[in-house]
Amino acid sequence: MIITISREFGSGGRELGKRLADQLGLRYYDKELITEIAEKTDTNENYVNYVLEEGGYKNHVYVYARSIPYITPTPSAITDVLVAQQNVIKKIASEGNCVIVGRSASAILKGYDIFRIFVYADEQSKLERCRSRAPEDENLTDKQLLKKMKLIDKNRQSLHDLFAADEWTSRTGYNLMVNTSHAEIKAIVPPLAELIKSYYKK
Amino acid sequence: MIITISREFGSGGRELGKRLADQLGLRYYDKELITEIAEKTDTNENYVNYVLEEGGYKNHVYVYARSIPYITPTPSAITDVLVAQQNVIKKIASEGNCVIVGRSASAILKGYDIFRIFVYADEQSKLERCRSRAPEDENLTDKQLLKKMKLIDKNRQSLHDLFAADEWTSRTGYNLMVNTSHAEIKAIVPPLAELIKSYYKK
Repeated sequence: MIITISREFGSGGRELGKRLADQLGLRYYDKELITEIAEKTDTNENYVNYVLEEGGYKNHVYVYARSIPYITPTPSAITDVLVAQQNVIKKIASEGNCVIVGRSASAILKGYDIFRIFVYADEQSKLERCRSRAPEDENLTDKQLLKKMKLIDKNRQSLHDLFAADEWTSRTGYNLMVNTSHAEIKAIVPPLAELIKSYYKK
Repeated sequence: MIITISREFGSGGRELGKRLADQLGLRYYDKELITEIAEKTDTNENYVNYVLEEGGYKNHVYVYARSIPYITPTPSAITDVLVAQQNVIKKIASEGNCVIVGRSASAILKGYDIFRIFVYADEQSKLERCRSRAPEDENLTDKQLLKKMKLIDKNRQSLHDLFAADEWTSRTGYNLMVNTSHAEIKAIVPPLAELIKSYYKK
């Protein structure tokens, strides 16, 4: 059983994925993927994060090279990261029994018989979740936080769209889309795990 | 507990709604609403179906009057049906504990604290479901059947959009979007019922 979780920033997708993995006894992958991609490409986690999470893959190598002092870019650095991302995710999938959160796994594993979940929530609920988890030194106004949320989602969306035919938020790419606005994630995970299992009963 | 089911034609939303109502001990409303609206408006079920299901509400009364011989239209006939639709659905909601399938209930009950589900599937799966349930005398080609499916969904969408701010297929209007393409509805309903109950545990 392989489950991918795509998620809006602040929707609790990561918590949901972690709890789901625990509930179903599956391996869990999230930020570990960044470390592995960095190792494979002989770069570092900041750089991989920049390429995959901050929209860096959209910029030409000579443009970003000026603004990213901590790497020595080669013209193929971005391509290397994108290729490594795909290899790492496909290797994990080949080992089976896992939950992969984010990193465009749902799109990269197109054609694989896996269970795809999209986790989302309304703005108010996402703001509250971000507030409750923000570092103490983060002093963003609601407006700034919303702007940050939207930017992160936009980057997730466009990285996904690089790999997939279905748009990031399109229902057609998922088995289930779960709105966490009025849910306590801890409470919904056990029946959600049963629901996923029931898809495999025929 | 009030659950509304919006569904693509052929996705099995009706079966899912019926089984969910049985599982949770809720009243079930579907075509019964058409009968009730017809009674309230002193018209008949064919006419109500025409207005609500076949896009009739979009046409001006004097245009459709010519092609619908079995009614004596008044200029307000369509409005009457739309008003009755809203009254009937709100009355049922006021009694609580029910599952309402279709009839734009999700949109008409905006602002109500209810559980909204959207049921969908891929084209192949919907074609197979339609084939298995079609009347014996229905001899449509795949192309004709797909065209029919799309037309029905288009009518459902535009009637919904008359009442709601969120588009018919937008995740933001739902608590859960369920893809039935690779699911046996009978198998997924019991855990789905538990999942819905878990939303109410805080």
